[in-house]
Amino acid sequence: MQRLNGKETALQIRKELQEKVLIRKELGKKTPHLAAVLVGSDGGSLSYVTAKVKACEEIGFDSTLIRFDENVSEDTLLAKVIELNEDQNIDGFIVQLPLPHHINETKITDTISPNKDVDGFHPMNLGNMMLNLPGFLPATPAGIIELMRRYEIETSGKHCVIIGRSNIVGTPLSMMLSRNSNPGNCTVTLTHSRTKNLKELCLQADILIAAIGRPEFVSADMIKEGAVIIDVGTTRVDDASRERGWRLVGDVNFKDASSKASYITPVPGGVGPMTIASLMMNTLKAMELNGK
Amino acid sequence: MQRLNGKETALQIRKELQEKVLIRKELGKKTPHLAAVLVGSDGGSLSYVTAKVKACEEIGFDSTLIRFDENVSEDTLLAKVIELNEDQNIDGFIVQLPLPHHINETKITDTISPNKDVDGFHPMNLGNMMLNLPGFLPATPAGIIELMRRYEIETSGKHCVIIGRSNIVGTPLSMMLSRNSNPGNCTVTLTHSRTKNLKELCLQADILIAAIGRPEFVSADMIKEGAVIIDVGTTRVDDASRERGWRLVGDVNFKDASSKASYITPVPGGVGPMTIASLMMNTLKAMELNGK
Repeated sequence: MQRLNGKETALQIRKELQEKVLIRKELGKKTPHLAAVLVGSDGGSLSYVTAKVKACEEIGFDSTLIRFDENVSEDTLLAKVIELNEDQNIDGFIVQLPLPHHINETKITDTISPNKDVDGFHPMNLGNMMLNLPGFLPATPAGIIELMRRYEIETSGKHCVIIGRSNIVGTPLSMMLSRNSNPGNCTVTLTHSRTKNLKELCLQADILIAAIGRPEFVSADMIKEGAVIIDVGTTRVDDASRERGWRLVGDVNFKDASSKASYITPVPGGVGPMTIASLMMNTLKAMELNGK
Repeated sequence: MQRLNGKETALQIRKELQEKVLIRKELGKKTPHLAAVLVGSDGGSLSYVTAKVKACEEIGFDSTLIRFDENVSEDTLLAKVIELNEDQNIDGFIVQLPLPHHINETKITDTISPNKDVDGFHPMNLGNMMLNLPGFLPATPAGIIELMRRYEIETSGKHCVIIGRSNIVGTPLSMMLSRNSNPGNCTVTLTHSRTKNLKELCLQADILIAAIGRPEFVSADMIKEGAVIIDVGTTRVDDASRERGWRLVGDVNFKDASSKASYITPVPGGVGPMTIASLMMNTLKAMELNGK
């Protein structure tokens, strides 16, 4: 059993991006610039956004954090999105979700220019992904694909079973892995809360991807010998033995899975760090696509 | 075994649309207007487009057929698309594919306004479909969903295996059937040319959908007892016993399947007629969405 070390891979990607930025700077070219919009002061959202901004700084990207009070009007937020769309200095930007209930998330997401949508949430980017055309891929699925690419995991003709059909992980990943691409060309089964024979399906998976946010949901009896296991779950579980009082737990029982899997992503240090690395890759790509 | 009679269902839908148009006319409201753009004189494309225009006439829709020589420039075609986007009298329009090689199909499709894209091929509409948001659904998959709806086929929790990942049938259908909707909520397995254990997978299907264009590819040994069989294939096969010299053959061996299936779509008269019915439904919807 080999661990798919997302932490190490993400660091490697950051190092590569850092070098690219240095070369660009030496050539007098523009530095990639990511803007992040945060509404309110939810602890989770704040820590995600902070991590993204920090990652930019570390690799030499420019970054701008724009914060709004949680009572900000939809119109004000839309106006900011339009301003960022038009700002030649900003290559890509994200609006951290979720947004407060009085703001229509779809309206905000749809207003972001697809060319600056480095989160890959815009329907135009999702549609192009479905058609296997260029565009921005959602960060977490793209990070998983990149991790598989770098570990040279064979995907063509493999049966991939995905647990969870969320808009940001399970659903786009099902598309990406079934396209005629590499990594890709998997036979993909997308399962969800209505699936009746989940265990039976999981046992057929050459590649099993769990993305439902239920701690240690996947047990040994659901895993085929030699399967590749990708664990997207990150749930905080109380742990009195840790100073901070909690630990991160994935959707897969790691001990169970370790005895059967050929490859496995640990939690933490697997898929998580790859998400920010993808976002950085998308930002560089946004700048290059805009011909800068 | 019950036949899913697409021909009869499509006629019923046309009748319903005809009634709606009549009521609209009595109220002095606008008549739905579909435009179809045809480039060149390929026999298949011509007969598809002619059938669509004829369907419009039969149900009382307005229709406009716009024909270009096969040497038309991309710029001329783009200009026509933009003109149709802006024409308040046209509610929806299609550009019949395939286009000659010197024209970039993606560029044409992307230029069609998503609000008039009654073929449902625009990435924006596909992306919205993925997010389970409103938009135009591609005509053939939407026709299949409508047929299942009208025959009250239970889909929730069923395992649906789709053979073929084309952009216009297999791929969008895999999305539509896996969404949290009704029909929908299927566990969907999308298979294709790289799939290794196709027979084994098909045997698990409660709903088996074949969309690869290989005559009688699906045989009895691939079908689970009681399965619902949807046959999207329509290949012309030489047949000296017919006056016209050919007959239409589906992707499923009908005789084989009849002995095992609970429901089955015949070829012809199954999925085919539903495609045009969907297009007509989309056209009426386009007009209503535009507030007319």
